[in-house]
Amino acid sequence: MKKIMVLGAEGYVGWNLTMFLAKKYEVIAIDNSLKRRIAKGKSLIKTLPIKKRIKVYKKVFKKDIKYYNCDICQDYKKLFKILKKEQPDVIINLAQLPSAPYSMEFHGGTLTIVNNEMGNYNVLWGMKLYCPKAHLIKMGTMGEYGTPNIAIPEGFLKVKYKGRSDVLPFPKQAGSFYHWAKVTESNHSMFASKVWGLKITDLMQGVLYGLETDESIEDHRLLSDFYYDSDWGTALNRFVVQMVSGYPITPFGKGKQKRGFLNIKDALQCFDLYIKNPPKQGEYKVVNQLCEQGFTINELAGTVQDIGISMGKWSVIQNIDNPRMENEDHYYHAETNTLDKLKLKKVNFRKEITNLIEVVEEYKKNIDIKLIKPTTTWK
Amino acid sequence: MKKIMVLGAEGYVGWNLTMFLAKKYEVIAIDNSLKRRIAKGKSLIKTLPIKKRIKVYKKVFKKDIKYYNCDICQDYKKLFKILKKEQPDVIINLAQLPSAPYSMEFHGGTLTIVNNEMGNYNVLWGMKLYCPKAHLIKMGTMGEYGTPNIAIPEGFLKVKYKGRSDVLPFPKQAGSFYHWAKVTESNHSMFASKVWGLKITDLMQGVLYGLETDESIEDHRLLSDFYYDSDWGTALNRFVVQMVSGYPITPFGKGKQKRGFLNIKDALQCFDLYIKNPPKQGEYKVVNQLCEQGFTINELAGTVQDIGISMGKWSVIQNIDNPRMENEDHYYHAETNTLDKLKLKKVNFRKEITNLIEVVEEYKKNIDIKLIKPTTTWK
Repeated sequence: MKKIMVLGAEGYVGWNLTMFLAKKYEVIAIDNSLKRRIAKGKSLIKTLPIKKRIKVYKKVFKKDIKYYNCDICQDYKKLFKILKKEQPDVIINLAQLPSAPYSMEFHGGTLTIVNNEMGNYNVLWGMKLYCPKAHLIKMGTMGEYGTPNIAIPEGFLKVKYKGRSDVLPFPKQAGSFYHWAKVTESNHSMFASKVWGLKITDLMQGVLYGLETDESIEDHRLLSDFYYDSDWGTALNRFVVQMVSGYPITPFGKGKQKRGFLNIKDALQCFDLYIKNPPKQGEYKVVNQLCEQGFTINELAGTVQDIGISMGKWSVIQNIDNPRMENEDHYYHAETNTLDKLKLKKVNFRKEITNLIEVVEEYKKNIDIKLIKPTTTWK
Repeated sequence: MKKIMVLGAEGYVGWNLTMFLAKKYEVIAIDNSLKRRIAKGKSLIKTLPIKKRIKVYKKVFKKDIKYYNCDICQDYKKLFKILKKEQPDVIINLAQLPSAPYSMEFHGGTLTIVNNEMGNYNVLWGMKLYCPKAHLIKMGTMGEYGTPNIAIPEGFLKVKYKGRSDVLPFPKQAGSFYHWAKVTESNHSMFASKVWGLKITDLMQGVLYGLETDESIEDHRLLSDFYYDSDWGTALNRFVVQMVSGYPITPFGKGKQKRGFLNIKDALQCFDLYIKNPPKQGEYKVVNQLCEQGFTINELAGTVQDIGISMGKWSVIQNIDNPRMENEDHYYHAETNTLDKLKLKKVNFRKEITNLIEVVEEYKKNIDIKLIKPTTTWK
């Protein structure tokens, strides 16, 4: 049975992934609760600490999950010791502070850049030294690419210039220090793969949404953190919380921005596909990981509003000043050849939004609507 | 009179630039002697501490240079205080650990990445908060681009893909963690220029060579550090030291690598051109800064050998195993439109190598030939 190590196992993706994988693999979960401490209880779901959640999981699924508390950025010695001892087949690095607005404050940016980049750097070095055959699956973001006026292939692009040509890394145009840290992590990973022969899948993920998974549905004490506030929340999750509260749904600026989206359950399936289809030793493989695209943020808000109406709820859509600096009207198309080829079975978009609305409704009393208004601006 | 702040003023470029600029501008020098402490006296020239050099300079040139000891990475509060008080017109950030091999050791890489990136991050934030009209001139490197199979324009490239087009940042393919830190500093600078409206000149510098400048020639106590060892030295300077010692000149690997080169005196002139020709507020301008290209490292070694012979010296050329992982036979051409347009008056390549040989000859007794053999490999 493959041994999978999940770094950042307490987070939104990390915990859901840990539960999902532990049903069929040996899973080692690692976290140091950094985000939990910084986000200070802003999650809609008041989750148990990870060690207690692991106990609940054991009761429900009769499966063990081994847990280490480790700061992979500051405590590289402990990380190295764990890698040496455990010899994982797969390392999934989700141990990043994931907030763009938080990274645009001075101290938040410092912590985000150092924590995320150097955590990943330590993982790469740890692999080189102690488990060079392991497969690293690393969480990048579609936000690394920005919004170029051409389609976005997976990681690399054939370029012609003055009669010559080359295949080069796709140029990055991130929109926050958080996103730039992701770019650097991707650069370091591509480079470590080349010089040390590591095998790495780097996934450029779209914007996630969703809450309940096939695991947490069995016992809601297993639900993951779910952020909807201005720092840690993401667009679609936030829109649903606004709609459930009967408050206006608030796209930023013109609302003509386009992005790629995917459900948390689709993301979990993606990870399993990568585990089963690793790159060759020494290969750095980039995957664009998203399931829905081709609509604007306004249209997304409209979809949430529309589904709400069908459930007897009503929110207006009210565009607010954009706290970010970004193109608000642009071309967007990401190629998804890898997931098409691996035949990812996607969930139904509208059905999952409906489910999300229902689950958020259950936890409505936890919503603090004041948390949604942006407090950090890019300027 | 313009007020120029030089960060990293104790270094090879920094000190020569500080002297050069102080003849016609008000110069504030900042350093914390980090490289000096790490490189542990490996410099050919046993330089005085910067404060003493400043006193010698005062005697020779009758000009004051103000000095602050400040760690711009760790002590952002002091940096901010200095920026607020001094209100520089131009900030030149050279405060980076500049070694590729050092960055390929675990701890060296950690320090290089954090020190270089976060120092520059603090400068960007300090400018935003306290002197947003200042002109930042930032030291990047041609090494950020790697060795693509197409010509290298200055920073940006028009890209066509599937019937659409865009002008995008030129893709980066750095060859060490040091070079990747430079990439990140460039990315952060481009981004800060965009969101905060800063004006920034980012220079992609070729490989420097040379020692004596129009200032240090007046009094050799003003000579800068000059490294020829495997960690801190660069190709041409190292070749000259090998030749002067009568030891073999040792290109890495096949020696068919190509790079761009420039003399330290040309580099100083370049900075003055940027000071006199700043970008517009909010503009991020990339300059490829090099004067000589189109020959291989073997040919460069041959040039040094050839000039040596004309001076009655003789060294064999002996290619050694390449400690780095890099293309050893490739296309290379960097476009230099900005310097062509600004009409940089270049020094004479062979004449300057001759001068370098003469000055190194003077300090021959300081050469420790054991320091040249590579100790760090990329693998």
